[in-house]
Order: sequence, then C-alpha cells, then structure tokens
Amino acid sequence: MIIKPKEYTYHTQLDWLSEKKGRLHSIGKPSMTVACPPEFGGHPNIWTPEDLFVASIEVCIMTTFLWYIKNKKINLLSYKSQAEGTVSMVDNIFQFSSIIIHLDITVSSSVEKDVIKGILKKVEKQCLITQSIKSRISVTADINSG
Amino acid sequence: MIIKPKEYTYHTQLDWLSEKKGRLHSIGKPSMTVACPPEFGGHPNIWTPEDLFVASIEVCIMTTFLWYIKNKKINLLSYKSQAEGTVSMVDNIFQFSSIIIHLDITVSSSVEKDVIKGILKKVEKQCLITQSIKSRISVTADINSG
Repeated sequence: MIIKPKEYTYHTQLDWLSEKKGRLHSIGKPSMTVACPPEFGGHPNIWTPEDLFVASIEVCIMTTFLWYIKNKKINLLSYKSQAEGTVSMVDNIFQFSSIIIHLDITVSSSVEKDVIKGILKKVEKQCLITQSIKSRISVTADINSG
Repeated sequence: MIIKPKEYTYHTQLDWLSEKKGRLHSIGKPSMTVACPPEFGGHPNIWTPEDLFVASIEVCIMTTFLWYIKNKKINLLSYKSQAEGTVSMVDNIFQFSSIIIHLDITVSSSVEKDVIKGILKKVEKQCLITQSIKSRISVTADINSG
C-alpha cells in the first residue's frame, strides 16, 4: 500500500541581475527573466510577479479542471482561458482585489456540456491556489459542442 | 500634473495542449509551457501553477526590496533568494499553508547592512502579493558586506 503524504513542497530560486530585473529558476525547468512592471518603475515585456500570480491561478483552474474530467469519458476538443487580475490600493497598500477568469471550452457533444457545467462548479472551490488567496475570484465559461 | 491611477490590471492567457499540459501567454512576453505537477498526475520538468505561485511571491519580495533601496544610495553587490512553498491538506482541500523565503544580500559596507535590515522589515508588509494571500509567510536574510 502506498500512502501519499498530505504535504508537498515547491521550490524556486532568484538572482538579481541589474536595475529591476532578476533571473528566476526552478530545478529541472527553463529559467526565465523576471522584472518589476513599468508602472512600478520597472521594465516592459518581461514577466512580472503580478503576471506570475495571475498565471498561477489561471493555470491551477485548468489543471484542477483536467483532474476532474480524467475519469469522465469527456472528449475535450479545446480549452482556452483568459485571466485578468486587478491590483487596487487598500488601506494605503496595494493588493490584488479581484481575479476574473473566463474559460472557452469545446467538447464533442451536448451531453458532455452538461457534465462540464457540473465540474466547473467544483473546480473553483477545489483549486489549491484559489484556496490560498484573499482576492475575489470569478470564473465564467462558454461551453460549446463542436 | 500626472495623477496615477490606484488600480492596475494584469492579463494572461492559456491554451490547453494535451494531457495535463498547456501553453501560457502574456502579450509581449515569452510564452511558456505549463503543466500539472507529477504528484497530482502531471509531468516533470515543466513549470506548474504551484511553482508560479511561489515564484510570484519570491519575485515580488525582490521587486519591493529594489523599490525601497532606490533612493538610499545603497551599493547592492548581489541579491539572491530561495523560496519554499508548502501545500497541505486543510479541511480536505489542498492549499498553500506556508511560504519560506531566504535572502542572501551583499552590500559594500557595514553601514549599508544596517539600512538593509530596516528596509527588510517593511518589504514583507508592503509586497502586494504577500498582502493578497492567506498563507503564512516567513522572510529571513543573511546580509553581508563584501
């Protein structure tokens, strides 16, 4: 019998490069340049902590969704999403006040569409990153059969 | 007079590829492959939502630190950090219970070391991503003069 632990750890490493830029690493994965965004005195066209935060939620919604459909005999034809995170000043400190994620999902039949609708209600609640943040989350979806 | 808005938005987009993998985009920035991690039925050696979440905090600590030192005449010789995020089961749902970030900073004089110590007390509180999450955060630092 294999008993899975109830804890997992994730590691990243960071080296400052110059100005407002750094190099982000996670062992075994491609390194990437990161920076402070232009609106906070940084650089354009480089991944920022704000982007990574929004991305972590958007990707976790997808991976949680994929986990839920794995035993459902769903013929998933496509899954796309768009995410927008809003940073607001609250008590004189900036924070992410809201995250809006819109999904565009295509499956092969209308029966599957109903199954997907039921799954999406669970996804937002079970996504481990939405569970870890204070920001208001909104997940909407267009579900098509193609 | 330029009045800066008190809100900023950040956007990412995601396309499912196959299995537990997707392609993550943010306009103007390099796209990257992302996936569910192996311990949740995914793939090794690909950035996961859990990695991106930990990275967003680690990078935000650095960018907030760089913002604080910009007017302080600090000769920053190096800044490196290591981050560990722990996912635990709470009320039968996984979430990030803690994030530990250790900084290794080198400046040119011992006077600057004292300034850095003062700044680090503010960084954790002002980092907009630590303000947005529920997880317990711990930031420690070795500060050297080289």
